[in-house]
Amino acid sequence: MPTEPKLVPPRAKGSSVARVSAAWYVACTSRELGRRVPVARTILGQPIALFRGEGGAPGALLDRCPHRNVPLTLGRVTDRGALECGYHGWRFDRGGRCLEVPALCGVAEASARDAVSFACVEQDGYVWVWGEPGVAPSAQPFRFPLLSAEGYTSVRQHVVADASVHAVAENALDVPHTAFLHAGLFRSDARARNRVEVVVRRWHDRVEAEYVGEPRPEGLVGRLLSPKAGVVEHWDRFLLPSIVQVEYKLDAAHVFVCAAMTPESDYRTHLYAVVSFKLPIPGWPLVPLLKPIALAIFSQDARVLRRQTDNIHRFGGESYVSTEIDVLGPHILRLLRAAEQGKLEPSDAPKERRFHMDV
Amino acid sequence: MPTEPKLVPPRAKGSSVARVSAAWYVACTSRELGRRVPVARTILGQPIALFRGEGGAPGALLDRCPHRNVPLTLGRVTDRGALECGYHGWRFDRGGRCLEVPALCGVAEASARDAVSFACVEQDGYVWVWGEPGVAPSAQPFRFPLLSAEGYTSVRQHVVADASVHAVAENALDVPHTAFLHAGLFRSDARARNRVEVVVRRWHDRVEAEYVGEPRPEGLVGRLLSPKAGVVEHWDRFLLPSIVQVEYKLDAAHVFVCAAMTPESDYRTHLYAVVSFKLPIPGWPLVPLLKPIALAIFSQDARVLRRQTDNIHRFGGESYVSTEIDVLGPHILRLLRAAEQGKLEPSDAPKERRFHMDV
Amino acid sequence: MPTEPKLVPPRAKGSSVARVSAAWYVACTSRELGRRVPVARTILGQPIALFRGEGGAPGALLDRCPHRNVPLTLGRVTDRGALECGYHGWRFDRGGRCLEVPALCGVAEASARDAVSFACVEQDGYVWVWGEPGVAPSAQPFRFPLLSAEGYTSVRQHVVADASVHAVAENALDVPHTAFLHAGLFRSDARARNRVEVVVRRWHDRVEAEYVGEPRPEGLVGRLLSPKAGVVEHWDRFLLPSIVQVEYKLDAAHVFVCAAMTPESDYRTHLYAVVSFKLPIPGWPLVPLLKPIALAIFSQDARVLRRQTDNIHRFGGESYVSTEIDVLGPHILRLLRAAEQGKLEPSDAPKERRFHMDV
Repeated sequence: MPTEPKLVPPRAKGSSVARVSAAWYVACTSRELGRRVPVARTILGQPIALFRGEGGAPGALLDRCPHRNVPLTLGRVTDRGALECGYHGWRFDRGGRCLEVPALCGVAEASARDAVSFACVEQDGYVWVWGEPGVAPSAQPFRFPLLSAEGYTSVRQHVVADASVHAVAENALDVPHTAFLHAGLFRSDARARNRVEVVVRRWHDRVEAEYVGEPRPEGLVGRLLSPKAGVVEHWDRFLLPSIVQVEYKLDAAHVFVCAAMTPESDYRTHLYAVVSFKLPIPGWPLVPLLKPIALAIFSQDARVLRRQTDNIHRFGGESYVSTEIDVLGPHILRLLRAAEQGKLEPSDAPKERRFHMDV
Repeated sequence: MPTEPKLVPPRAKGSSVARVSAAWYVACTSRELGRRVPVARTILGQPIALFRGEGGAPGALLDRCPHRNVPLTLGRVTDRGALECGYHGWRFDRGGRCLEVPALCGVAEASARDAVSFACVEQDGYVWVWGEPGVAPSAQPFRFPLLSAEGYTSVRQHVVADASVHAVAENALDVPHTAFLHAGLFRSDARARNRVEVVVRRWHDRVEAEYVGEPRPEGLVGRLLSPKAGVVEHWDRFLLPSIVQVEYKLDAAHVFVCAAMTPESDYRTHLYAVVSFKLPIPGWPLVPLLKPIALAIFSQDARVLRRQTDNIHRFGGESYVSTEIDVLGPHILRLLRAAEQGKLEPSDAPKERRFHMDV
Repeated sequence: MPTEPKLVPPRAKGSSVARVSAAWYVACTSRELGRRVPVARTILGQPIALFRGEGGAPGALLDRCPHRNVPLTLGRVTDRGALECGYHGWRFDRGGRCLEVPALCGVAEASARDAVSFACVEQDGYVWVWGEPGVAPSAQPFRFPLLSAEGYTSVRQHVVADASVHAVAENALDVPHTAFLHAGLFRSDARARNRVEVVVRRWHDRVEAEYVGEPRPEGLVGRLLSPKAGVVEHWDRFLLPSIVQVEYKLDAAHVFVCAAMTPESDYRTHLYAVVSFKLPIPGWPLVPLLKPIALAIFSQDARVLRRQTDNIHRFGGESYVSTEIDVLGPHILRLLRAAEQGKLEPSDAPKERRFHMDV
């Protein structure tokens, strides 16, 4: 009588949604996961119960008790690190093994009574979950490059956007929109634009755009990071499965933004961002100044992304037209599609392409 | 051009939803149905207009005027007990017959103009409606056993749960969950459990569980009903199509909870409960004390049932695993399925099964 | 990869929804459309961005930027009358032509980058949009007959009803419901009804009902328009694609109600109404008196139409039964269906039918 239902709805045609399940995703921060109360998260449409098992190591179970399908996050974590269902008290360990069926005379353990479990590790202050249940991960979670580097100040921020991983990644790494959507805050739509060279390099699992000869952005953020004008070094990168990076160098200043994206569902994406920077002056006094600006910029992006998603739903799909200055978006989609289908063929030398853009 | 549309959506796979339409269901209490204003209720997904016809006898029509499909409950009841549509004033009697088409020159009556009607009777202070329109009932409505019995106090209560009839019935008659979900209020998850014998008896149209050697529940309710400990006699019963009963005897105390369930839709169930009890002391002073506790227990059940239903929808169906201490749930589902398919073969002797449980 | 998705969902069976796209519809009033901010409207389920192009002439584009599908109404109108997307700043003229792709080195214009456009004209103080994009209109917008006629006072009113064009038109032109739904305000369900003759005349693109020998309506509106009783001349008309008219003459009084309906979606219809009247006394002092009454009558209609629509959705379709006093509804549906399928065969002489009704 019990049949295993399909969790994920079919994907709309003409959609840039990619479902890369063979990957590590940040489920929550280490601080959010205490010892007593399980935490509910959703990854790729799969409701997940996070908790700390024996010794404090994190565990991730499908948020559905195998007994009567009640969310396990309604329950509690026992002293010995078992997740106990709040309905009938069934208990499970980090691996999903059923440890106890209260009131039952006889053995509790039986494979049919086990909960569905996901691989789960803690690293860099984040709890990472493998996107597919019941399998051994084929890789290690991503490491944030400059998180603890000497001389760098690192700030963490968790934000959410109602858009697909692809749309969020393209937006995060897109240059031309900044002069319009973030006019004044970041770049501005000045009459006098500057022609810069764009170098795109594509590997089998990542893509990078380097901007050569780019003047320091005119907006508020640029002025704060470097009072005097000049030419910046600037790279935007996407790394499979879901890492975006924006890197700037200007004289002694180095700013490195790195975010791990987690697809809650097809059109809702979390960004766990780490901003690491080294400046000629001490970095920490800048944080209370830059954080509100960064969040204001992000809220403009989040709004336009949500309206983009609304339109995708209103029109029943996407219908995009790109030009060469949509530098990384089409590459990111191709990488995501390949990863989704498990067709990643390693190659040593990157493919390189050069063209110009007026920024 | 008019086509008769399907009212009820297809059922999800792996669902314990049963749609037993050949049955009487409580639509509302007698008190809720006045003389002037029709009452809107939904049974098995069918919107129904209840009203009092000539002489005060209740009538039940599909809540859709045959003329322009406006809800008949938007209208009013005439002095002579006709239900009058609020849009064009068409009038209908208890049987759905069209009595009047205002402004029409000629005869109003025509079978195409009749409203769809359901059999409807009043009994025990409830208005009962037969679940299928346009047919003669093949049975009488259920009678609440001790409603007017001498020496008994009876209290009525109407509650609603966002779950299927099966889930609500299983929950109402389930013993193991009480130590967890209702810890403290009813049973508690004491270290020292007691082994009791469970006797399950199944007839073709009902199933009963008798608990032999069960100590009086430790929680607040048990203490109120009988200050001194001891062994109780305890029966849980499900009677087709939708009656649940919980009966306790302890010395001179007798508590009999009986509820008629009404499926508003697949995942929303009404419970019209009558609690009848006889105690060594007068019963009525206990009512203001016990009612809030009973409602607190029910609200815990309602919450877990709603989350169970949410998960059924999130996962697109059910995937249950049962053990023998899920005493009545699987039996109830089998009975509901048989009733839904009209496959009830009477048998005299019940099938009996015995096993143990630690409560 | 981009595929053109279907905007409009399939139509429910047994539905009176008609989708007449080869027609002009009022999108907004002239006053609502300024020079700076685009206006979002939806016609036949199609989101549309309205704006004033070069010289102030109105333009209508599908509200989806061809680049990344963000609504164009998130953007702004430039000094020179281009609609600029708020995401990357792409600019479009009234015809949808892409004028600029900021930051792109090279030519911006390319047919693939054009926005989808609708024909759009301004007339009678309204902005009219042709219901199908990318085609040249085969007709002129409707002209409101007495809008500027000498001796007439004209009042405009925009209202919305949650019902199909057919349901709204039938309601607007239906006589029998007024005695029930609007009892007291308009007609009343008097015991003593009057038998009047109804003459229905049908052309290939319109239908008219003339009421002969009808006494002046008894309700408040009738008394205000003519204090003394008498016989009125009364016509109700439906003109394809979406015009309804109600005309009364009584002695020197002449009242002409004309409304253009715009289908926002299958079950949401806008009415842009013009009430023109000539009375023995000056008309304008009556406006503040009659407007609240007319809006009260409409709000009763809007309520019953919304409940009718709710029931169509609850029951998954319509199931109507008509009599001969549903004078125009069935004719309107036949006309809408013919227009939807492009099967309008002109005929000179109207078909005429006569019968009686008790009003």
